[in-house]
Amino acid sequence: MADPTTIAAPRRVRVGDYLIERLRDLGVGHVFGVPGDFVLGFMHKIERSELTLVNTCDEQGAGFAADAYARMRGLGVVCVTYGVGGLKIANTTGQAYAEESPVVVVSGAPSLAERALHPLIHHKVRGYDTQLRVFEQLTVASTVLGDSETACREIDRVLAVALREKRPVYIELPRDMVDAEVVAHAAPPLPPEVSDPAVLAAALAEATARIAAARRPVIVLGVEVQRFGLTEAALRLIERTEIPTAVTLLDKSAIGERHPSFIGLYAGALGRDEVREYVEGSDCVLLLGALLTDLNLGGFTARLDPARCIHATRGRLEVGYHVYERVQLTDVVDGLAAADLPRRDPSRAPRPAPIAPVENGRPDAPITVARLFGRLAAFLSDDLIVIADPGDALFGAADLPVGRSPGFLAPAYYASLGFAVPAAIGAQLAAPGCRPLVLVGDGAFQMTGVELSTAVRYGLNPIVVVLNNGGYATERLILDGAFNDVLPWDFARLPDLLGAGRGFRVETEGELDAALDAASAETETYCLLDVRLDPKDVSPALRRLAGRLSTAAAGAGSVSEP
Amino acid sequence: MADPTTIAAPRRVRVGDYLIERLRDLGVGHVFGVPGDFVLGFMHKIERSELTLVNTCDEQGAGFAADAYARMRGLGVVCVTYGVGGLKIANTTGQAYAEESPVVVVSGAPSLAERALHPLIHHKVRGYDTQLRVFEQLTVASTVLGDSETACREIDRVLAVALREKRPVYIELPRDMVDAEVVAHAAPPLPPEVSDPAVLAAALAEATARIAAARRPVIVLGVEVQRFGLTEAALRLIERTEIPTAVTLLDKSAIGERHPSFIGLYAGALGRDEVREYVEGSDCVLLLGALLTDLNLGGFTARLDPARCIHATRGRLEVGYHVYERVQLTDVVDGLAAADLPRRDPSRAPRPAPIAPVENGRPDAPITVARLFGRLAAFLSDDLIVIADPGDALFGAADLPVGRSPGFLAPAYYASLGFAVPAAIGAQLAAPGCRPLVLVGDGAFQMTGVELSTAVRYGLNPIVVVLNNGGYATERLILDGAFNDVLPWDFARLPDLLGAGRGFRVETEGELDAALDAASAETETYCLLDVRLDPKDVSPALRRLAGRLSTAAAGAGSVSEP
Repeated sequence: MADPTTIAAPRRVRVGDYLIERLRDLGVGHVFGVPGDFVLGFMHKIERSELTLVNTCDEQGAGFAADAYARMRGLGVVCVTYGVGGLKIANTTGQAYAEESPVVVVSGAPSLAERALHPLIHHKVRGYDTQLRVFEQLTVASTVLGDSETACREIDRVLAVALREKRPVYIELPRDMVDAEVVAHAAPPLPPEVSDPAVLAAALAEATARIAAARRPVIVLGVEVQRFGLTEAALRLIERTEIPTAVTLLDKSAIGERHPSFIGLYAGALGRDEVREYVEGSDCVLLLGALLTDLNLGGFTARLDPARCIHATRGRLEVGYHVYERVQLTDVVDGLAAADLPRRDPSRAPRPAPIAPVENGRPDAPITVARLFGRLAAFLSDDLIVIADPGDALFGAADLPVGRSPGFLAPAYYASLGFAVPAAIGAQLAAPGCRPLVLVGDGAFQMTGVELSTAVRYGLNPIVVVLNNGGYATERLILDGAFNDVLPWDFARLPDLLGAGRGFRVETEGELDAALDAASAETETYCLLDVRLDPKDVSPALRRLAGRLSTAAAGAGSVSEP
Repeated sequence: MADPTTIAAPRRVRVGDYLIERLRDLGVGHVFGVPGDFVLGFMHKIERSELTLVNTCDEQGAGFAADAYARMRGLGVVCVTYGVGGLKIANTTGQAYAEESPVVVVSGAPSLAERALHPLIHHKVRGYDTQLRVFEQLTVASTVLGDSETACREIDRVLAVALREKRPVYIELPRDMVDAEVVAHAAPPLPPEVSDPAVLAAALAEATARIAAARRPVIVLGVEVQRFGLTEAALRLIERTEIPTAVTLLDKSAIGERHPSFIGLYAGALGRDEVREYVEGSDCVLLLGALLTDLNLGGFTARLDPARCIHATRGRLEVGYHVYERVQLTDVVDGLAAADLPRRDPSRAPRPAPIAPVENGRPDAPITVARLFGRLAAFLSDDLIVIADPGDALFGAADLPVGRSPGFLAPAYYASLGFAVPAAIGAQLAAPGCRPLVLVGDGAFQMTGVELSTAVRYGLNPIVVVLNNGGYATERLILDGAFNDVLPWDFARLPDLLGAGRGFRVETEGELDAALDAASAETETYCLLDVRLDPKDVSPALRRLAGRLSTAAAGAGSVSEP
């Protein structure tokens, strides 16, 4: 037995190895990226580590995949080279920031020696700090690992902020630091974010009293419930009280949609009328971790009276007009789940829309948006995870009955086109038991659809439904022009280009049934369904939303005719 | 006749129309972009204007196309929506900054009213100014057109800076400002950048004396000669003195390569030895507008003695160790062209490498990199403009004898993969008489190659040569791993996906000849040559350069084995 008075020799470690260790310890299994000379040394290390390196076609794909991975697994990593790699993921990092997804951006960079000696090294924009300055705008913490003394602490600090804030962070790794040997002293933990006990007690007391006294309370789950790992606590509250529960678009599938207390999606005019009326008619709307964005609120068609709301978000609880600060969302949800609240009779609450029965009697009928989503609703199973790109793919998917939780991914606030296909790669690697069902418009597919190449390379098998209607349907409803057209591709021929996959052209209901059956049976590779829709045929939800957005734009004067 | 004492009523104009007018007056004919709701109003205006709107598959493609257009035509425009559009072109804008290409970024944005009323509008990252802050890092001037009083002046100011600095600028157009009617008062012109006459006279006197006294002077043309429109003045100097003239990689084709004074590419170990020896052995190297970057200097294998150099760049002239400030590049080149300098005897200077004779006797021989470029050299004609992606496509192309000036485009400093295919769209629209010959690696093609969709849509006909060697060949020579592999695509099948174009698979010399002949004859659409190369077969230039980069990296400790 070692003499307890002996001081252990400090552990020495290389900076690149320490970063890999810490990521692994935090549950990361995959790193998404594209190589480049400034990051080859670190990628070489990853390749020999327990982490799996996943190379996408373009950095944009890696950024979206890491975002999806983070949403599923709690932390995602994208690894790129300097400048030409880093700046390509400004947008995907911006989305992770907006939608609270903890993505670690690791960028290789010129060595410290190169920086000192040469003003004009390739991949440099303005100064050597240009990329850092850009990412300071898009992340909650950033560091350049330029100092052996502090490198390990900086890694710890930045990763801790990502986990606490659930937002992206930036780590720049000069190539001469990858193998620099340093003392592995861990950073002191971040000061915990704790509630002020007195404020918390008062806040919970008022909230509990309000809920208990309400005639017809309702819960609306928002995205922070999933991000902060509060799904279980929220379920305890729901199951103890049987309060009817809706979700926002950004948090769809926070609760399995066969749950007896689930009533549907609340999103103003975007959701079903009976859910909107039930929520807006409630005398106590308990919003848990919901972001009140324009899309979550159906283009601001939602009508929530703040006086009748209890709104819990990170670090803050509003009960009517009373604002409580220094109260943590975790403590509020736990507190309400443990509170003495009466059990409700859920019988008067709306039930989720029944799945439209799928008759098989019209195999030659041209496929419509409504029939497509009706058929997909019947096709859903708990091993499928639905991933929707912005546009009618997302709006149409809003009412799909997703039983799995989490079982739905979409950038329903920041709304960057091109997310869904690369996200499917990240999601399936994060949750190997599932198979992605990707819904994506033709315009968005032309942005990032070739990332199915990455699915082939890593043996993944998403089912990809391309809503092919000749362009940007959402925008046509706001203001149309040739700019909303895209070149008609023969999407089902993608397997010919990639040398793998199965493609199906779907023009009728019968062809859709056949293609979905074939996709079910074909589990070895991706299946792509090119679903040819009438360009004027959009989901009712989109029609309502676009009407609202169009009115808003015209009112602002931007699209009126001169 | 109007009474001259009458003051003309101030012209009233809508902000969006004024921006379009000014772009048109500055020679812009095309705007590249992808629509989104915040920019629909402005795109609608463009569509009804004299400008042609060119919609690419992804914003990245639009950014690269606008960059190429700017290099060919003096100003380029990329137009995108807020957030999801703007942040996707951070990288292409960074490249335009690094390589001095005047690109105007026009981004739609939420209305001023929306910003005031709602904290969470879609496509927003952190604050409404996040995108502006990012572009401040990547441009030389930026503005948000939020004030009717100043909108026209701001447009003038920002465009003037782009033209003066030859670098990108950023204009954010809130959607409620597009049709705001304002008084069209132009901004006062920027103060001209003039030389200090006394400094200029002294600088020219010393430079002229040095050149006149030199035994064997040589000129090296750099990128600023083309950017600042000094090609004609430089040619006057060259033709009056017959001083042998080389170019840097970033400025290849600044002078037609059949010009009697042209000796070849100067790029350290990257160029041919006789050019390097001639330049480095000269007692007076006149560098005109050259950026001394690592790639221009062949990975710092160049050995230029500053004591024997005259180095003219924007605003500065170095004669040996004498630095003259406040002298403009234009004045220096004009001054030298008009100076009394002796005529030289060019007979001892190296001549450009003769084109390797193409024997037709080995049609079954597998194609090699050397034979590919030999055959392309013979294929070149003055209606072709060569566009090379970074990597061996660029290095192999370095010695192609480009007769047209300008006839060569490549991001030879910033080196962002994926440039060449979208750049071909911008270049051909900027110079309709030319046909692009695109050289691109398989890895880079997987990033942006589907932008050939845009070529189809706008009736363009590039010839695209994919150097298909199974991955990132340049990186393999530095440090190899599975991360340098890409999925083998059947590139010649792209026309099946896009529904247009011609594809050729090339494995032998005979197939290359046949494909090039067919591509010559097929002028209605793009032609794609999938040239299957041995993964280990790279150009000699790349082998030399990678050796240098590898040594640098190993010396810096990043890729050594632990």
